[in-house]
Amino acid sequence: MKLIIGNKNYSSWSLRAWLATKQSGLGFEEIVVPMGGEAWDELKAGNLDAARGGTQPSRGKVPILWDGEAVVWDSLAILEYLADKVGRDRFWPKDEAARATARAMVAEMHSSFQALRSECPMNVRRRFEGFAPSEACRGDILRILGLWAEARSRFGGGGPFLFGTFGAADVFYAPVVSRFISYQIGVPGFAAAYMQAIWEHEWMQGWIAASENEEWVIEQYETAAA
Amino acid sequence: MKLIIGNKNYSSWSLRAWLATKQSGLGFEEIVVPMGGEAWDELKAGNLDAARGGTQPSRGKVPILWDGEAVVWDSLAILEYLADKVGRDRFWPKDEAARATARAMVAEMHSSFQALRSECPMNVRRRFEGFAPSEACRGDILRILGLWAEARSRFGGGGPFLFGTFGAADVFYAPVVSRFISYQIGVPGFAAAYMQAIWEHEWMQGWIAASENEEWVIEQYETAAA
Repeated sequence: MKLIIGNKNYSSWSLRAWLATKQSGLGFEEIVVPMGGEAWDELKAGNLDAARGGTQPSRGKVPILWDGEAVVWDSLAILEYLADKVGRDRFWPKDEAARATARAMVAEMHSSFQALRSECPMNVRRRFEGFAPSEACRGDILRILGLWAEARSRFGGGGPFLFGTFGAADVFYAPVVSRFISYQIGVPGFAAAYMQAIWEHEWMQGWIAASENEEWVIEQYETAAA
Repeated sequence: MKLIIGNKNYSSWSLRAWLATKQSGLGFEEIVVPMGGEAWDELKAGNLDAARGGTQPSRGKVPILWDGEAVVWDSLAILEYLADKVGRDRFWPKDEAARATARAMVAEMHSSFQALRSECPMNVRRRFEGFAPSEACRGDILRILGLWAEARSRFGGGGPFLFGTFGAADVFYAPVVSRFISYQIGVPGFAAAYMQAIWEHEWMQGWIAASENEEWVIEQYETAAA
Protein backbone atom coordinates (compact mmCIF):
# COMPACT_ATOMS: atom_id res chain seq x y z
CA MET A 1 0.00 0.00 0.00
CA LYS A 2 1.38 3.41 -0.98
CA LEU A 3 0.20 6.79 0.22
CA ILE A 4 1.11 9.80 -1.92
CA ILE A 5 1.12 13.04 0.04
CA GLY A 6 2.25 16.65 -0.30
CA ASN A 7 4.56 18.68 1.94
CA LYS A 8 3.98 17.75 5.55
CA ASN A 9 4.28 21.37 6.61
CA TYR A 10 1.50 22.62 4.33
CA SER A 11 -0.76 19.82 3.13
CA SER A 12 -3.66 19.50 5.53
CA TRP A 13 -5.50 16.90 3.44
CA SER A 14 -2.35 14.81 3.34
CA LEU A 15 -2.18 14.90 7.14
CA ARG A 16 -5.74 13.59 7.33
CA ALA A 17 -5.06 10.67 4.96
CA TRP A 18 -1.77 9.89 6.72
CA LEU A 19 -3.39 9.82 10.16
CA ALA A 20 -6.18 7.64 8.77
CA THR A 21 -3.67 5.19 7.32
CA LYS A 22 -1.80 5.12 10.63
CA GLN A 23 -5.09 4.50 12.40
CA SER A 24 -5.86 1.55 10.10
CA GLY A 25 -2.87 -0.27 11.54
CA LEU A 26 -1.91 -1.46 8.05
CA GLY A 27 1.64 -1.11 6.80
CA PHE A 28 2.22 1.48 4.08
CA GLU A 29 4.93 3.31 2.22
CA GLU A 30 4.63 7.09 2.11
CA ILE A 31 5.69 9.03 -0.97
CA VAL A 32 6.10 12.77 -0.41
CA VAL A 33 5.61 14.80 -3.60
CA PRO A 34 6.66 18.38 -2.78
CA MET A 35 4.17 20.92 -4.08
CA GLY A 36 5.55 22.80 -7.06
CA GLY A 37 8.40 20.40 -7.77
CA GLU A 38 8.98 18.25 -10.83
CA ALA A 39 7.13 15.21 -9.52
CA TRP A 40 4.26 17.54 -8.66
CA ASP A 41 3.97 18.54 -12.33
CA GLU A 42 3.83 14.86 -13.27
CA LEU A 43 1.14 14.35 -10.66
CA LYS A 44 -0.92 17.28 -11.93
CA ALA A 45 -0.64 15.97 -15.48
CA GLY A 46 -2.05 12.67 -14.27
CA ASN A 47 1.11 10.82 -15.28
CA LEU A 48 1.64 9.16 -11.94
CA ASP A 49 -1.77 7.54 -12.11
CA ALA A 50 -1.65 6.93 -15.82
CA ALA A 51 1.49 4.86 -15.26
CA ARG A 52 -0.74 2.49 -13.34
CA GLY A 53 -2.85 1.84 -16.44
CA GLY A 54 -6.08 3.41 -17.50
CA THR A 55 -6.97 5.09 -14.26
CA GLN A 56 -8.58 8.50 -14.46
CA PRO A 57 -6.02 11.01 -13.20
CA SER A 58 -6.75 12.36 -9.78
CA ARG A 59 -6.76 15.96 -11.03
CA GLY A 60 -3.34 16.61 -9.62
CA LYS A 61 -4.29 16.56 -5.99
CA VAL A 62 -2.92 14.81 -2.96
CA PRO A 63 -3.46 12.58 -1.06
CA ILE A 64 -3.81 9.43 -3.14
CA LEU A 65 -3.81 5.88 -1.82
CA TRP A 66 -2.67 3.06 -4.08
CA ASP A 67 -3.58 -0.44 -2.98
CA GLY A 68 -3.29 -3.08 -5.67
CA GLU A 69 -5.95 -2.27 -8.27
CA ALA A 70 -7.50 0.35 -6.04
CA VAL A 71 -6.74 4.07 -6.46
CA VAL A 72 -8.36 6.38 -3.92
CA TRP A 73 -7.83 10.09 -4.47
CA ASP A 74 -9.65 11.81 -1.62
CA SER A 75 -8.91 11.91 2.10
CA LEU A 76 -12.39 10.95 3.28
CA ALA A 77 -12.65 8.20 0.67
CA ILE A 78 -9.26 6.91 1.84
CA LEU A 79 -10.47 6.79 5.43
CA GLU A 80 -13.65 4.93 4.44
CA TYR A 81 -11.74 2.59 2.15
CA LEU A 82 -9.46 1.71 5.07
CA ALA A 83 -12.43 1.32 7.40
CA ASP A 84 -13.86 -1.18 4.89
CA LYS A 85 -10.63 -3.16 5.22
CA VAL A 86 -10.05 -3.12 8.97
CA GLY A 87 -13.54 -2.63 10.34
CA ARG A 88 -15.61 0.45 11.03
CA ASP A 89 -15.06 0.42 14.79
CA ARG A 90 -11.46 1.48 14.44
CA PHE A 91 -12.59 4.83 13.01
CA TRP A 92 -16.16 5.48 14.12
CA PRO A 93 -17.93 5.41 17.50
CA LYS A 94 -19.94 2.28 18.23
CA ASP A 95 -22.89 4.19 19.69
CA GLU A 96 -25.34 5.16 16.94
CA ALA A 97 -26.03 8.75 18.02
CA ALA A 98 -22.31 9.37 18.56
CA ARG A 99 -21.50 7.88 15.18
CA ALA A 100 -24.17 10.02 13.51
CA THR A 101 -22.61 13.15 15.01
CA ALA A 102 -19.07 12.07 14.13
CA ARG A 103 -20.06 11.33 10.55
CA ALA A 104 -21.76 14.72 10.17
CA MET A 105 -18.80 16.57 11.73
CA VAL A 106 -16.32 14.85 9.43
CA ALA A 107 -18.47 15.48 6.35
CA GLU A 108 -18.83 19.16 7.32
CA MET A 109 -15.04 19.47 7.63
CA HIS A 110 -14.71 17.81 4.23
CA SER A 111 -16.98 20.25 2.40
CA SER A 112 -16.93 23.47 4.43
CA PHE A 113 -14.97 26.07 6.42
CA GLN A 114 -13.70 27.78 3.28
CA ALA A 115 -12.89 31.03 5.09
CA LEU A 116 -10.73 29.32 7.70
CA ARG A 117 -9.05 27.21 5.05
CA SER A 118 -8.17 30.16 2.81
CA GLU A 119 -7.20 32.66 5.54
CA CYS A 120 -5.30 30.20 7.69
CA PRO A 121 -3.46 27.77 5.42
CA MET A 122 -1.82 25.05 7.47
CA ASN A 123 1.79 25.81 8.32
CA VAL A 124 2.75 23.39 11.05
CA ARG A 125 6.10 24.93 11.98
CA ARG A 126 5.11 28.64 11.95
CA ARG A 127 3.47 30.90 14.53
CA PHE A 128 1.84 34.12 13.31
CA GLU A 129 1.42 37.17 15.53
CA GLY A 130 -1.61 39.42 15.35
CA PHE A 131 -3.72 37.41 12.93
CA ALA A 132 -7.11 39.10 12.45
CA PRO A 133 -9.77 36.74 11.13
CA SER A 134 -12.53 38.02 8.86
CA GLU A 135 -16.10 37.73 10.07
CA ALA A 136 -16.59 34.60 7.96
CA CYS A 137 -13.46 33.07 9.46
CA ARG A 138 -14.64 33.94 12.97
CA GLY A 139 -17.90 32.17 12.10
CA ASP A 140 -15.97 29.08 11.07
CA ILE A 141 -13.93 29.12 14.27
CA LEU A 142 -17.03 29.47 16.45
CA ARG A 143 -18.78 26.71 14.55
CA ILE A 144 -15.85 24.35 15.06
CA LEU A 145 -15.63 25.17 18.77
CA GLY A 146 -19.37 24.47 19.04
CA LEU A 147 -18.96 21.11 17.32
CA TRP A 148 -16.03 20.19 19.56
CA ALA A 149 -18.00 21.22 22.65
CA GLU A 150 -20.96 19.09 21.62
CA ALA A 151 -18.85 16.03 20.83
CA ARG A 152 -16.81 16.30 24.04
CA SER A 153 -19.75 16.97 26.33
CA ARG A 154 -22.18 14.41 24.90
CA PHE A 155 -19.87 11.68 23.68
CA GLY A 156 -16.35 12.33 25.02
CA GLY A 157 -16.71 9.86 27.88
CA GLY A 158 -13.53 9.67 29.90
CA GLY A 159 -11.15 9.98 26.95
CA PRO A 160 -9.24 13.04 25.76
CA PHE A 161 -10.48 12.95 22.15
CA LEU A 162 -13.69 14.21 20.52
CA PHE A 163 -15.52 10.92 20.95
CA GLY A 164 -13.31 9.54 23.74
CA THR A 165 -10.76 7.46 21.86
CA PHE A 166 -8.86 8.68 18.79
CA GLY A 167 -10.93 8.26 15.62
CA ALA A 168 -12.15 9.69 12.32
CA ALA A 169 -13.30 13.01 13.80
CA ASP A 170 -9.88 13.62 15.36
CA VAL A 171 -8.21 12.66 12.08
CA PHE A 172 -10.29 15.27 10.29
CA TYR A 173 -9.92 18.10 12.82
CA ALA A 174 -6.20 17.58 13.54
CA PRO A 175 -5.17 20.13 10.85
CA VAL A 176 -7.57 22.62 12.44
CA VAL A 177 -5.73 22.15 15.71
CA SER A 178 -2.51 23.00 13.88
CA ARG A 179 -4.11 26.11 12.40
CA PHE A 180 -5.50 27.30 15.74
CA ILE A 181 -1.98 26.96 17.20
CA SER A 182 -0.21 28.66 14.26
CA TYR A 183 -2.59 31.61 14.10
CA GLN A 184 -2.87 31.79 17.90
CA ILE A 185 -6.67 31.61 18.01
CA GLY A 186 -8.03 32.16 21.51
CA VAL A 187 -10.06 29.15 22.65
CA PRO A 188 -11.87 28.09 25.83
CA GLY A 189 -10.22 25.64 28.24
CA PHE A 190 -11.94 22.47 27.04
CA ALA A 191 -10.73 23.19 23.50
CA ALA A 192 -7.19 23.93 24.65
CA ALA A 193 -7.13 20.58 26.47
CA TYR A 194 -8.38 18.77 23.38
CA MET A 195 -5.83 20.55 21.18
CA GLN A 196 -3.06 19.54 23.54
CA ALA A 197 -4.16 15.89 23.37
CA ILE A 198 -4.01 16.01 19.57
CA TRP A 199 -0.69 17.85 19.50
CA GLU A 200 0.96 15.40 21.90
CA HIS A 201 -0.32 12.32 20.08
CA GLU A 202 2.62 10.17 18.99
CA TRP A 203 1.70 10.31 15.29
CA MET A 204 1.22 14.08 15.34
CA GLN A 205 4.60 14.47 17.01
CA GLY A 206 6.14 12.45 14.21
CA TRP A 207 4.42 14.54 11.56
CA ILE A 208 5.43 17.81 13.26
CA ALA A 209 9.08 16.73 13.45
CA ALA A 210 9.04 15.83 9.76
CA SER A 211 7.46 19.21 8.90
CA GLU A 212 10.20 21.03 10.72
CA ASN A 213 12.83 19.15 8.76
CA GLU A 214 11.36 19.88 5.34
CA GLU A 215 13.44 22.28 3.30
CA TRP A 216 10.70 23.50 0.96
CA VAL A 217 9.15 26.91 1.54
CA ILE A 218 6.01 28.03 -0.29
CA GLU A 219 5.90 31.81 -0.08
CA GLN A 220 2.16 32.22 -0.49
CA TYR A 221 1.53 30.34 2.76
CA GLU A 222 4.11 32.26 4.77
CA THR A 223 2.08 35.35 5.57
CA ALA A 224 -1.05 35.79 7.65
CA ALA A 225 -3.69 38.49 7.13
CA ALA A 226 -3.17 40.64 10.20
CA MET B 1 -37.15 8.62 10.76
CA LYS B 2 -37.58 12.17 9.40
CA LEU B 3 -35.73 13.76 6.52
CA ILE B 4 -35.72 17.55 6.36
CA ILE B 5 -35.11 18.87 2.86
CA GLY B 6 -35.32 22.11 0.89
CA ASN B 7 -37.26 22.89 -2.28
CA LYS B 8 -37.22 19.88 -4.57
CA ASN B 9 -36.72 22.09 -7.60
CA TYR B 10 -33.56 23.74 -6.30
CA SER B 11 -31.93 21.78 -3.50
CA SER B 12 -29.39 19.41 -4.98
CA TRP B 13 -28.04 18.23 -1.62
CA SER B 14 -31.59 17.43 -0.55
CA LEU B 15 -32.05 15.29 -3.65
CA ARG B 16 -28.93 13.31 -2.73
CA ALA B 17 -30.08 12.65 0.83
CA TRP B 18 -33.59 11.79 -0.36
CA LEU B 19 -32.33 9.29 -2.94
CA ALA B 20 -30.03 7.79 -0.31
CA THR B 21 -32.91 7.36 2.11
CA LYS B 22 -35.02 5.79 -0.64
CA GLN B 23 -32.12 3.47 -1.42
CA SER B 24 -31.90 2.42 2.23
CA GLY B 25 -35.36 0.87 1.92
CA LEU B 26 -36.27 2.27 5.35
CA GLY B 27 -39.53 4.12 5.87
CA PHE B 28 -39.25 7.86 6.42
CA GLU B 29 -41.28 11.03 6.63
CA GLU B 30 -40.09 13.92 4.49
CA ILE B 31 -40.41 17.48 5.71
CA VAL B 32 -39.96 20.12 3.00
CA VAL B 33 -38.74 23.46 4.37
CA PRO B 34 -38.98 25.97 1.50
CA MET B 35 -35.85 28.10 1.21
CA GLY B 36 -36.51 31.66 2.34
CA GLY B 37 -39.79 30.91 4.11
CA GLU B 38 -40.64 31.24 7.80
CA ALA B 39 -39.66 27.68 8.71
CA TRP B 40 -36.38 28.27 6.87
CA ASP B 41 -35.59 31.15 9.22
CA GLU B 42 -36.26 28.86 12.18
CA LEU B 43 -33.97 26.27 10.62
CA LYS B 44 -31.18 28.79 10.07
CA ALA B 45 -31.48 29.97 13.66
CA GLY B 46 -31.02 26.37 14.79
CA ASN B 47 -34.43 26.31 16.42
CA LEU B 48 -35.61 23.17 14.67
CA ASP B 49 -32.69 21.23 16.06
CA ALA B 50 -32.68 23.01 19.38
CA ALA B 51 -36.26 21.82 19.91
CA ARG B 52 -34.79 18.32 19.99
CA GLY B 53 -32.66 19.20 22.99
CA GLY B 54 -29.06 20.24 23.14
CA THR B 55 -28.03 19.39 19.64
CA GLN B 56 -25.64 21.75 17.93
CA PRO B 57 -27.64 23.50 15.20
CA SER B 58 -26.85 22.33 11.72
CA ARG B 59 -25.89 25.84 10.61
CA GLY B 60 -29.17 26.30 8.80
CA LYS B 61 -28.53 23.87 6.01
CA VAL B 62 -30.54 21.06 4.54
CA PRO B 63 -30.70 18.09 4.39
CA ILE B 64 -30.95 16.82 7.96
CA LEU B 65 -31.91 13.31 9.02
CA TRP B 66 -33.49 12.77 12.41
CA ASP B 67 -33.53 9.21 13.69
CA GLY B 68 -34.23 8.86 17.39
CA GLU B 69 -31.25 10.38 19.21
CA ALA B 70 -29.29 10.70 15.98
CA VAL B 71 -29.12 13.98 14.05
CA VAL B 72 -27.20 13.84 10.76
CA TRP B 73 -26.79 17.16 8.95
CA ASP B 74 -24.86 16.35 5.79
CA SER B 75 -25.84 14.37 2.69
CA LEU B 76 -22.79 12.11 2.61
CA ALA B 77 -22.98 11.49 6.35
CA ILE B 78 -26.67 10.62 5.91
CA LEU B 79 -25.81 8.10 3.21
CA GLU B 80 -23.10 6.51 5.37
CA TYR B 81 -25.32 6.52 8.44
CA LEU B 82 -27.98 4.66 6.46
CA ALA B 83 -25.37 2.25 5.05
CA ASP B 84 -24.38 1.51 8.65
CA LYS B 85 -28.02 0.56 9.32
CA VAL B 86 -28.88 -1.50 6.25
CA GLY B 87 -25.48 -2.77 5.13
CA ARG B 88 -22.79 -1.31 2.91
CA ASP B 89 -23.63 -3.45 -0.12
CA ARG B 90 -26.84 -1.57 -0.76
CA PHE B 91 -24.84 1.59 -1.50
CA TRP B 92 -21.32 0.56 -2.50
CA PRO B 93 -19.88 -1.92 -5.01
CA LYS B 94 -18.74 -5.25 -3.56
CA ASP B 95 -15.55 -5.33 -5.64
CA GLU B 96 -12.73 -3.54 -3.82
CA ALA B 97 -11.29 -1.58 -6.77
CA ALA B 98 -14.79 -0.55 -7.87
CA ARG B 99 -15.66 0.51 -4.35
CA ALA B 100 -12.42 2.52 -4.07
CA THR B 101 -13.32 4.40 -7.25
CA ALA B 102 -16.93 4.93 -6.20
CA ARG B 103 -15.86 6.26 -2.81
CA ALA B 104 -13.38 8.69 -4.40
CA MET B 105 -15.93 9.89 -6.98
CA VAL B 106 -18.54 10.52 -4.31
CA ALA B 107 -16.07 12.33 -2.06
CA GLU B 108 -14.93 14.50 -4.99
CA MET B 109 -18.54 15.43 -5.73
CA HIS B 110 -18.99 16.25 -2.05
CA SER B 111 -16.06 18.69 -1.88
CA SER B 112 -15.52 19.96 -5.41
CA PHE B 113 -16.96 21.23 -8.71
CA GLN B 114 -17.54 24.73 -7.32
CA ALA B 115 -17.68 26.33 -10.78
CA LEU B 116 -20.40 23.98 -12.02
CA ARG B 117 -22.31 24.34 -8.77
CA SER B 118 -22.27 28.14 -8.82
CA GLU B 119 -22.84 28.66 -12.56
CA CYS B 120 -25.44 25.94 -12.96
CA PRO B 121 -27.62 25.87 -9.85
CA MET B 122 -30.01 22.94 -10.00
CA ASN B 123 -33.40 23.88 -11.42
CA VAL B 124 -35.13 20.61 -12.21
CA ARG B 125 -38.08 22.03 -14.16
CA ARG B 126 -36.25 24.65 -16.26
CA ARG B 127 -34.33 24.48 -19.56
CA PHE B 128 -31.89 27.29 -20.37
CA GLU B 129 -30.94 28.22 -23.93
CA GLY B 130 -27.45 29.33 -24.88
CA PHE B 131 -25.69 28.71 -21.58
CA ALA B 132 -21.96 29.50 -21.92
CA PRO B 133 -19.83 27.84 -19.23
CA SER B 134 -16.66 29.52 -17.97
CA GLU B 135 -13.37 27.74 -18.48
CA ALA B 136 -13.47 26.48 -14.88
CA CYS B 137 -16.99 25.17 -15.41
CA ARG B 138 -15.94 23.45 -18.65
CA GLY B 139 -13.13 21.84 -16.66
CA ASP B 140 -15.63 20.54 -14.13
CA ILE B 141 -17.86 19.14 -16.88
CA LEU B 142 -14.95 17.37 -18.58
CA ARG B 143 -13.75 15.98 -15.28
CA ILE B 144 -17.20 14.56 -14.52
CA LEU B 145 -17.52 13.04 -17.99
CA GLY B 146 -14.09 11.45 -17.49
CA LEU B 147 -15.13 9.99 -14.16
CA TRP B 148 -18.37 8.63 -15.61
CA ALA B 149 -16.47 7.12 -18.54
CA GLU B 150 -14.03 5.40 -16.23
CA ALA B 151 -16.74 4.03 -13.93
CA ARG B 152 -18.91 2.81 -16.82
CA SER B 153 -16.09 1.25 -18.82
CA ARG B 154 -14.22 -0.41 -15.96
CA PHE B 155 -17.02 -1.23 -13.54
CA GLY B 156 -20.39 -0.71 -15.28
CA GLY B 157 -20.84 -4.39 -16.08
CA GLY B 158 -24.14 -4.99 -17.80
CA GLY B 159 -26.14 -2.45 -15.83
CA PRO B 160 -27.16 1.07 -16.84
CA PHE B 161 -25.68 2.85 -13.81
CA LEU B 162 -22.16 4.03 -13.00
CA PHE B 163 -21.20 0.82 -11.24
CA GLY B 164 -23.89 -1.37 -12.82
CA THR B 165 -26.70 -1.24 -10.30
CA PHE B 166 -28.01 1.97 -8.71
CA GLY B 167 -25.84 3.04 -5.77
CA ALA B 168 -24.06 5.81 -3.90
CA ALA B 169 -22.27 7.22 -6.95
CA ASP B 170 -25.57 7.58 -8.83
CA VAL B 171 -27.14 9.17 -5.78
CA PHE B 172 -24.36 11.77 -5.74
CA TYR B 173 -24.25 12.51 -9.48
CA ALA B 174 -28.04 12.58 -10.04
CA PRO B 175 -28.21 16.37 -9.48
CA VAL B 176 -25.42 16.76 -12.05
CA VAL B 177 -27.59 14.89 -14.54
CA SER B 178 -30.36 17.39 -13.84
CA ARG B 179 -27.94 20.28 -14.38
CA PHE B 180 -26.60 18.87 -17.64
CA ILE B 181 -30.19 18.58 -18.90
CA SER B 182 -31.28 22.04 -17.71
CA TYR B 183 -28.25 23.84 -19.13
CA GLN B 184 -28.23 21.65 -22.26
CA ILE B 185 -24.62 20.55 -21.94
CA GLY B 186 -23.44 18.56 -24.96
CA VAL B 187 -22.29 15.09 -23.90
CA PRO B 188 -21.05 11.95 -25.69
CA GLY B 189 -23.41 9.03 -26.27
CA PHE B 190 -22.41 6.91 -23.28
CA ALA B 191 -23.11 9.86 -20.98
CA ALA B 192 -26.46 10.58 -22.63
CA ALA B 193 -27.47 6.95 -22.09
CA TYR B 194 -26.44 7.12 -18.44
CA MET B 195 -28.29 10.39 -17.93
CA GLN B 196 -31.42 8.86 -19.45
CA ALA B 197 -31.20 5.90 -17.05
CA ILE B 198 -31.01 8.28 -14.10
CA TRP B 199 -33.78 10.53 -15.39
CA GLU B 200 -36.16 7.63 -15.99
CA HIS B 201 -35.51 6.04 -12.61
CA GLU B 202 -38.77 5.73 -10.70
CA TRP B 203 -37.55 7.82 -7.74
CA MET B 204 -36.19 10.58 -9.99
CA GLN B 205 -39.50 10.69 -11.83
CA GLY B 206 -41.25 11.14 -8.50
CA TRP B 207 -38.86 13.93 -7.48
CA ILE B 208 -39.22 15.67 -10.87
CA ALA B 209 -43.02 15.59 -10.68
CA ALA B 210 -42.90 17.09 -7.19
CA SER B 211 -40.49 19.82 -8.39
CA GLU B 212 -42.88 20.80 -11.14
CA ASN B 213 -45.71 21.14 -8.67
CA GLU B 214 -43.84 23.38 -6.25
CA GLU B 215 -45.12 26.93 -6.21
CA TRP B 216 -41.96 28.61 -4.88
CA VAL B 217 -39.74 30.53 -7.26
CA ILE B 218 -36.28 31.73 -6.20
CA GLU B 219 -35.30 34.48 -8.62
CA GLN B 220 -31.55 34.15 -8.25
CA TYR B 221 -31.66 30.62 -9.65
CA GLU B 222 -33.84 31.49 -12.62
CA THR B 223 -31.22 32.91 -14.95
CA ALA B 224 -28.23 31.29 -16.63
CA ALA B 225 -25.01 33.07 -17.64
CA ALA B 226 -25.27 33.05 -21.43
